Amino acid sequence: MSRRYTLSDLAELFSVRLVGDGAVEISCVADLEFAEKGSISFFIDKKFQSQLKNTRASAVVISENKLSLCSKPALVSDNPHALFAEIATLLHPDEDMEEDAGIHDTAAVDPTATIHDTAIVAANSVIGAYCVVDEGVYIGPGCVLKQRVRVKAHSKLSANVTICKDCKIGERAIIHPGAVIGSDGFGFAHKDSKWIKVPQLGTVVIGDDVEIGAGVAIDRGALRDTVIENGVKLDNQIHIAHNVTIGENTVMAAQSGIAGSTRIGKDCAIAGAVGILGHLELADGTTINAFSEVPQSIMEPGIYASGTPLEPVAQWRKNRVRYKQLDEMARKLKDIERKLENLDKK
Amino acid sequence: MSRRYTLSDLAELFSVRLVGDGAVEISCVADLEFAEKGSISFFIDKKFQSQLKNTRASAVVISENKLSLCSKPALVSDNPHALFAEIATLLHPDEDMEEDAGIHDTAAVDPTATIHDTAIVAANSVIGAYCVVDEGVYIGPGCVLKQRVRVKAHSKLSANVTICKDCKIGERAIIHPGAVIGSDGFGFAHKDSKWIKVPQLGTVVIGDDVEIGAGVAIDRGALRDTVIENGVKLDNQIHIAHNVTIGENTVMAAQSGIAGSTRIGKDCAIAGAVGILGHLELADGTTINAFSEVPQSIMEPGIYASGTPLEPVAQWRKNRVRYKQLDEMARKLKDIERKLENLDKK
Amino acid sequence: MSRRYTLSDLAELFSVRLVGDGAVEISCVADLEFAEKGSISFFIDKKFQSQLKNTRASAVVISENKLSLCSKPALVSDNPHALFAEIATLLHPDEDMEEDAGIHDTAAVDPTATIHDTAIVAANSVIGAYCVVDEGVYIGPGCVLKQRVRVKAHSKLSANVTICKDCKIGERAIIHPGAVIGSDGFGFAHKDSKWIKVPQLGTVVIGDDVEIGAGVAIDRGALRDTVIENGVKLDNQIHIAHNVTIGENTVMAAQSGIAGSTRIGKDCAIAGAVGILGHLELADGTTINAFSEVPQSIMEPGIYASGTPLEPVAQWRKNRVRYKQLDEMARKLKDIERKLENLDKK
Repeated sequence: MSRRYTLSDLAELFSVRLVGDGAVEISCVADLEFAEKGSISFFIDKKFQSQLKNTRASAVVISENKLSLCSKPALVSDNPHALFAEIATLLHPDEDMEEDAGIHDTAAVDPTATIHDTAIVAANSVIGAYCVVDEGVYIGPGCVLKQRVRVKAHSKLSANVTICKDCKIGERAIIHPGAVIGSDGFGFAHKDSKWIKVPQLGTVVIGDDVEIGAGVAIDRGALRDTVIENGVKLDNQIHIAHNVTIGENTVMAAQSGIAGSTRIGKDCAIAGAVGILGHLELADGTTINAFSEVPQSIMEPGIYASGTPLEPVAQWRKNRVRYKQLDEMARKLKDIERKLENLDKK
Repeated sequence: MSRRYTLSDLAELFSVRLVGDGAVEISCVADLEFAEKGSISFFIDKKFQSQLKNTRASAVVISENKLSLCSKPALVSDNPHALFAEIATLLHPDEDMEEDAGIHDTAAVDPTATIHDTAIVAANSVIGAYCVVDEGVYIGPGCVLKQRVRVKAHSKLSANVTICKDCKIGERAIIHPGAVIGSDGFGFAHKDSKWIKVPQLGTVVIGDDVEIGAGVAIDRGALRDTVIENGVKLDNQIHIAHNVTIGENTVMAAQSGIAGSTRIGKDCAIAGAVGILGHLELADGTTINAFSEVPQSIMEPGIYASGTPLEPVAQWRKNRVRYKQLDEMARKLKDIERKLENLDKK
Repeated sequence: MSRRYTLSDLAELFSVRLVGDGAVEISCVADLEFAEKGSISFFIDKKFQSQLKNTRASAVVISENKLSLCSKPALVSDNPHALFAEIATLLHPDEDMEEDAGIHDTAAVDPTATIHDTAIVAANSVIGAYCVVDEGVYIGPGCVLKQRVRVKAHSKLSANVTICKDCKIGERAIIHPGAVIGSDGFGFAHKDSKWIKVPQLGTVVIGDDVEIGAGVAIDRGALRDTVIENGVKLDNQIHIAHNVTIGENTVMAAQSGIAGSTRIGKDCAIAGAVGILGHLELADGTTINAFSEVPQSIMEPGIYASGTPLEPVAQWRKNRVRYKQLDEMARKLKDIERKLENLDKK
């Protein structure tokens, strides 16, 4: 699965400066501590200086201003993490994408579906009526595409992914196992003390270069579409309700959820376990801390948070009781201030 | 997939008053803003008055008291949202339910299972021993029914749904992809510093007209059953622990969870990301706001909430530190009040 | 599915004291309230004393010091819950594990995979290249093992479980439907205003006697491995990020999440819906209450909690506003104290 390059080759390929012996052979990436001969590692955080000193890696990716700390052959970059990622991608290509093209015997492909010659349709997957699967796409084992799904070039559905009818997946998407795209939004009307279903008639449209984590659920729109723009990265077990839009290059960490019709801007960073109410707007470049609850729109980019501190349980119980008295406390405080003012005047 | 009616047909079918030209043809529903000719839309919120004015929809569902705002042919209802839902259901029937009946070649159906002639068993699904699948049921691609599962008439399991042994699904259920019904409850006994499994021997019993979202997990009971009563609607990624009961027509939004043996009443509304502890009771008609934590039973119906406000991170950090001092602050406040009283007496 | 023993047989098998008629036949377990003849139940909590009195169970598991409350034949144990669990396991063995060994016709097993003769590979499952499945393993319907997965003896993958490449599952694991082991960790580098993927090259290593709930997602390590040690029990819909380690016999309840590189100690108890930030350490024996947020390492074992109380919504709104004034209130309080001191001095 891995390939071999000299360090000079890598320097040339990525147009970066080489320091030291360019003839060393590199066949894999590793972290500093566990690296073996033949690997390249990276150094960013001075905290790991002793690991840099002792590493058995054959080379290191490092920034100019830290180069003096390093006695190994090195590739110099002002963004070592990104260069390391690119080298790792070169040395360790995704083996799923390199399987032989074609449709596995046990896959069930509807005769009306169009599968590109270079696509891989793995065992026990199901491709529904009028689906279109473009070049170099990987539909993993157990995946289900219902009616008229479109998956664009070089996208990967890992395994047991479900894409519901009419949804569109852009190019180079990576969708992890158990994700569900296009399930019905949660829409009901109340009649005669019961809930009746409001059919969910929109779809989900996913842009290019989107990554979607394991167990994510993205609901189809009610009448319009749910939209995930280019470059969005979603971690595991995220819930996206109907009619939501997530702007370009926004990242969301695991277990966060967005309620219906909310619009998240571009370049936002939503940390883990964040909840965002429906019908809101978040400005481009907004950051939300982990575990926060977002009950109102955010028009001013910045870092926002909610939530109380972790405490030993005895202390937590006491402060918790006081929380209920907070309004009362504030009013008492005002009374006292008034009294003191009166005393002053006397 | 869509059908064609005149507006008069629809007025007659749903026994509502027609205003304007009954001859207009209606073949689909749409929202006001993006509607095209041939569609019917609905109007409830005065906020969208300009959309109503400019809509290209051929007709609108509207209430009597807003009729004066509308220059389009209209159907008049005192519950426009419900009527719109019913018309949408008529015009856009679920195409999965209209597929040809029968068992797909790639489905694995145990010879002891009973599948009704009118049921649809889709590609690469698995039906276990002694299962019973009733009339008009749709078992979608990749779904798994383990031993002795019963699925009653006209229910739909969308795709990649798992129903574990002995569970019962009522009539007209809709279960979205990735949902799991009847996984083992989380029960262990502590012995010799280890955890040993307590076998989970109950089942899950799901009533009629229940909808279950993508990635929902409903655990089987330990010794009794977990019960989801008629008309309950569960959004995506909800967790229901063993022995829980959810009363009729209760709705729960995404990512909420209920711990073991809790009983939720009828007609409750649990918003998203709510956590409810175990062995509690929630009265009929209780509403819980999004992101709330429910640590005790609620005997009085009403609206309940917990959680702190969202703040810019600098302010949040300050208030967070103060939260830990809350009990101390409350005690200081009392001291001060006493001192002031003493001063007054002087 | 159930077997028959006399109460004497059970007393002998588990080396516990028998009180009363040893000839009664026991074929199943039940709870006190709904037990029928032929069943054995257990009694721990005095709250259920009247159920003990009225039960139709043929026998009861009970501790020495409560024996006087019981008029039924009994097995005496100082750990009745554990003994009950062991009897339940004996009487109600997992029927999946007792199916006929072999590979179902519809399973897709790569020719390079090694499947033990005694293993069960169920319908429409997929076993990838160079996988090794050991003796007595059950690979349920719709499960997918990608390349080079190892599943050790007597483990069970219930249904629709996905194990990604190179991951290792220990002996006697139980993995519930929809769980995903070894999906990519959430790792990206920022370059030219976009996120580029950092390949996730570690794996997931799962010890012996681990149970993993429905819809759980455990990400593979970035460069090292994600490690779940022996005896860990994970409830439904838990998220474990890359490079996390969970120590032996730790239990985690549903919907909790752990961010990247955090190390959880042994014998911890993490309740439901808990969020734990990345790069932290939790001491052995730490307990975290439900719904808590853990933003810092815990070096001292104990019980920790965060979160505010549930309140009627009107009261919640008031206190919520005051929360934002908390720092201001604390400073006012200090001012007042100073003023009062000055008054005292006068």
